[in-house]
Amino acid sequence: MEPKETVRIEGFSDAVFAIAITLLGTDLRVPPPGSPGLIANLLGQWPEYLSFLSSFGTIAIAWIYHHKLFALIRRADHTLLLLNCLLLLGVTVMPYSRKILAEYVGSPDVRVAAMVNDGTFILTAVFFNLLWRHASAHSRLLDSRADPHAISVLNRMIAIVPLLYLGSFLLASVSAVASTGLNLVLVAFFAIPKQLDPNLPGT
Amino acid sequence: MEPKETVRIEGFSDAVFAIAITLLGTDLRVPPPGSPGLIANLLGQWPEYLSFLSSFGTIAIAWIYHHKLFALIRRADHTLLLLNCLLLLGVTVMPYSRKILAEYVGSPDVRVAAMVNDGTFILTAVFFNLLWRHASAHSRLLDSRADPHAISVLNRMIAIVPLLYLGSFLLASVSAVASTGLNLVLVAFFAIPKQLDPNLPGT
Amino acid sequence: MEPKETVRIEGFSDAVFAIAITLLGTDLRVPPPGSPGLIANLLGQWPEYLSFLSSFGTIAIAWIYHHKLFALIRRADHTLLLLNCLLLLGVTVMPYSRKILAEYVGSPDVRVAAMVNDGTFILTAVFFNLLWRHASAHSRLLDSRADPHAISVLNRMIAIVPLLYLGSFLLASVSAVASTGLNLVLVAFFAIPKQLDPNLPGT
Amino acid sequence: MEPKETVRIEGFSDAVFAIAITLLGTDLRVPPPGSPGLIANLLGQWPEYLSFLSSFGTIAIAWIYHHKLFALIRRADHTLLLLNCLLLLGVTVMPYSRKILAEYVGSPDVRVAAMVNDGTFILTAVFFNLLWRHASAHSRLLDSRADPHAISVLNRMIAIVPLLYLGSFLLASVSAVASTGLNLVLVAFFAIPKQLDPNLPGT
Repeated sequence: MEPKETVRIEGFSDAVFAIAITLLGTDLRVPPPGSPGLIANLLGQWPEYLSFLSSFGTIAIAWIYHHKLFALIRRADHTLLLLNCLLLLGVTVMPYSRKILAEYVGSPDVRVAAMVNDGTFILTAVFFNLLWRHASAHSRLLDSRADPHAISVLNRMIAIVPLLYLGSFLLASVSAVASTGLNLVLVAFFAIPKQLDPNLPGT
Repeated sequence: MEPKETVRIEGFSDAVFAIAITLLGTDLRVPPPGSPGLIANLLGQWPEYLSFLSSFGTIAIAWIYHHKLFALIRRADHTLLLLNCLLLLGVTVMPYSRKILAEYVGSPDVRVAAMVNDGTFILTAVFFNLLWRHASAHSRLLDSRADPHAISVLNRMIAIVPLLYLGSFLLASVSAVASTGLNLVLVAFFAIPKQLDPNLPGT
Repeated sequence: MEPKETVRIEGFSDAVFAIAITLLGTDLRVPPPGSPGLIANLLGQWPEYLSFLSSFGTIAIAWIYHHKLFALIRRADHTLLLLNCLLLLGVTVMPYSRKILAEYVGSPDVRVAAMVNDGTFILTAVFFNLLWRHASAHSRLLDSRADPHAISVLNRMIAIVPLLYLGSFLLASVSAVASTGLNLVLVAFFAIPKQLDPNLPGT
Repeated sequence: MEPKETVRIEGFSDAVFAIAITLLGTDLRVPPPGSPGLIANLLGQWPEYLSFLSSFGTIAIAWIYHHKLFALIRRADHTLLLLNCLLLLGVTVMPYSRKILAEYVGSPDVRVAAMVNDGTFILTAVFFNLLWRHASAHSRLLDSRADPHAISVLNRMIAIVPLLYLGSFLLASVSAVASTGLNLVLVAFFAIPKQLDPNLPGT
């Protein structure tokens, strides 16, 4: 059997996902020493940690599904490389939009900041769709052993993701905390994929 | 023989470990030029370097054991991917908790900061246990050539790690320096694994 | 067939490209909360985002062509390792020169800043030429199945890249925005390679 | 033939080298807009760029030799993993010691700062020796096809590196610029290895 052509795309993507997810931690603020004490200060920063967990989980889930898709993709063409770079653009911007959200906690603009953050999630989800639509529409890019049922399940599943984040975007216009919390719920939802479809392939 | 399914999980994890361990160095403070001179200033920053070495060693040892575990794991399921992401969450937070500890040297809250830092070590050790318990309990995930004795040695060894860091956590309530020093001792302890069990497999 | 010798060079290069492209995002400035509101502030930062997209696209295209070249390269000698390190030097400096450009928006020196930024693009394009010229001139470094026509197309294509960026450099002496916009157009141009040559190999 | 056991060690090391070398660029300072203009300000920062090129070249050469050594190493034991982590500790500290050097340009302590920077180079060179000495002394770790002559050439070559950097360390007590310049000369020296030994293997 021919060697898998996508090894380097996967390696490059893994590195971008890994750096983006680790940079989330470097943006967390250390509260300055002083009253009312470290624990109270850390607890008072809970919106910062909520947005960190939400973005960490979202990038982790995005990586897991990137992994699932490329387990089915065997060959790459120029368009696939470009669409993958667009997807990585979305991932790269996520730590920035989370930093905006964290910076605006307590400001009247916090809901707008949450909408900007959700906007990068929607964009990334759209790029995910374009990538997978291109790959699944060109059977020569796919592994010949790929299960057609698994492909159609993934098609349906990925198609609804932008709509879910659109819901979070609309919710952010009412409450930034509710929208960030919903994003965490979506992470949990995708972490347990059998809820979506009992026939979704395991890995 | 079928190809190893975990190549990409290992690559992604390697990148996260590598970034977290390298970011530790970027957080080290450069003392501003001026009296009493650079050497005196660097030596005066010894608690910063102690916590750096302790966290560097801890992440390095965590990577070495991640390497040992995945040498025995051959297949991945969805749960393994999720538990691995939780483990990486712990690793990603380590540079942040070390930065908190370094920032609070000289503050009355330094012992609380050391407990927060030890808390991320305990959490990461617990995630390590969950990951390995899941893999070792599902023999289809393991390499069929994996030595059952090696697996049971690793089981026992990994199970005590959260307890060791719990000891360090309790010690931190008395002395931040003693706790950070104990963490370095634990690094040395795991670096010489034959002390733990004469039958532990080499690599 | 012998194993590909360049796996590690590709892995190291992928990591450098991935870090440089992700660091572009960490340098984006978060506008401080306050009037005239987040959206107006973000829109007012459009030159920052233009230079971000331009540099992101340039590094992404550079990675895609690095990928194309190393699909044809099978063996490495010491000179190839060195030329690849020079290429990575150019890539590593790109986030720095973009930061200079972003910092000088609104300053009378902005055109000089754009020329500095374009200078790193020219330099990287020259290193790309040196790398590919060395590899394509030593047939023992190339995959024996490499299509001679594909090689000569790549030769011509890569040779013009420094000239294109020289044009952008000259344009920067008139307008920083026009030069940065031209760089984005060049990204789009290389993203659709069939425009350059109908016979260019797909991936 | 058995698969190479060191794939993951190489991947993890590649990522650490790549991050350290790319972080060097993020520490470069952008001169604030204003008189006497950007070009004059950039040229005035030449000691910063000298130390950047010197550290970039040193990490690049270290990576190239890490690559050369692991082309001969086929198996890993626990000690090799540990010594490799010590080597990576040296690499991780290099961006920090370069930042110290850059910060102290113009201060009376700049020579001490250059000695600290050279100290990390010496330490890394010593760890390189320990790593290679361990591997070359245990033939079961080496590729059975490894040329004994290549091994003994590498033995001699690597042994003198700490001495060369000790020379640079002593020179730094007289002049920080001369020492940093010598480090760049050493990079060029190692980049053309035939100068050292006409029989050194190519890659």
